[in-house]
Amino acid sequence: MSVTELPQSPTAGLYQEIQQFYAQQMHLLDDGRVGEWADTFTEDGVFAANAQPVPAVGRAAITEAAAKATEAYAAAGVQRRHWLGMVSVESATPEAVTARCYALVIETPRGGRPEIKASTLCEDRIVRSGGTWRIQDRQITRDDLI
Amino acid sequence: MSVTELPQSPTAGLYQEIQQFYAQQMHLLDDGRVGEWADTFTEDGVFAANAQPVPAVGRAAITEAAAKATEAYAAAGVQRRHWLGMVSVESATPEAVTARCYALVIETPRGGRPEIKASTLCEDRIVRSGGTWRIQDRQITRDDLI
Amino acid sequence: MSVTELPQSPTAGLYQEIQQFYAQQMHLLDDGRVGEWADTFTEDGVFAANAQPVPAVGRAAITEAAAKATEAYAAAGVQRRHWLGMVSVESATPEAVTARCYALVIETPRGGRPEIKASTLCEDRIVRSGGTWRIQDRQITRDDLI
Repeated sequence: MSVTELPQSPTAGLYQEIQQFYAQQMHLLDDGRVGEWADTFTEDGVFAANAQPVPAVGRAAITEAAAKATEAYAAAGVQRRHWLGMVSVESATPEAVTARCYALVIETPRGGRPEIKASTLCEDRIVRSGGTWRIQDRQITRDDLI
Repeated sequence: MSVTELPQSPTAGLYQEIQQFYAQQMHLLDDGRVGEWADTFTEDGVFAANAQPVPAVGRAAITEAAAKATEAYAAAGVQRRHWLGMVSVESATPEAVTARCYALVIETPRGGRPEIKASTLCEDRIVRSGGTWRIQDRQITRDDLI
Repeated sequence: MSVTELPQSPTAGLYQEIQQFYAQQMHLLDDGRVGEWADTFTEDGVFAANAQPVPAVGRAAITEAAAKATEAYAAAGVQRRHWLGMVSVESATPEAVTARCYALVIETPRGGRPEIKASTLCEDRIVRSGGTWRIQDRQITRDDLI
């Protein structure tokens, strides 16, 4: 894809909606609000990562995996922050968006120093569902495992 | 707050205004332009942080604290960069916005390597004042002190 | 420049176009698609950095420098990610934009940990050319070399 073939820029409204959605979504996870975070995926949502042997398929499986990780971080006294940035909306219809962004996981232990635990590529299919945006498919590629 | 109860997305114009405001505000501080940076707070602005025993209240107190820190960094030959991201506009009227974002402080000593000195949550009340946006209340929560 | 003299906020559409342009541009470079990345500069584009003795002038020189670096990173098994953020659009006409942002280079070796290799200031002149935005002049100031 050459630059002149890059998709036409999405409407400004759509682009900021995705930015706001990403921010709110990750605030929920980093605040430990797992159920509400999982609700940002569709019921049949897929969360796949090259760090995991098999994808989590369906909101129940996504919730279970996130709850386990969230409890482990809380027990360890570590605050996570997920930073999504460099968002590129690759295609958009009124009902579905594909987006590609970078994601960092920054962890700070209580009394300790922040560290970047993972640098990743995040590829999403986001759909309108129940009056809001939800992730239907998320693919996370951790840079150290490429 | 469930996802379906998330505030309606602010207008795209407002969202980008806040992003631009945050960028310009922190460029001023990182450039050592303390007076102009302090002018991005209201006269009665509050800057509170869990790293400080008491909040700085009023622009004069905010200026004084920032000037002191800025001189110390300059004397040490350290360039700071404040990164605000993952911006979520939580409520908005034409005159006042509440926003929640993440903020990193990245420091680079002359001839040295960049390091993340602090990972924080930033909660702002931003108001229209004198024809521009200004911070009326900023609460910074450093992750290592939670 | 005092805050009250800050340029009027650009249209939301323009601001998001620049964000999307930056994301796509750096995705190309980090994906090793050097030719397409170089095509995001004008034919007479300039890439200057305080880390380099002389600027790269013209798309051919920019391509050559980027290709060399890209091959070295690939050979070393290191994934780079360029994060541009804290974007401030400083001036804008329908044909040309000046913008100032921060840029981080985050590197992850295969099997290793991500590290911030460089924290920089990025100052761009971006012009409409051939139906799209292209960089006409980019000045990178690495914080460790100030």
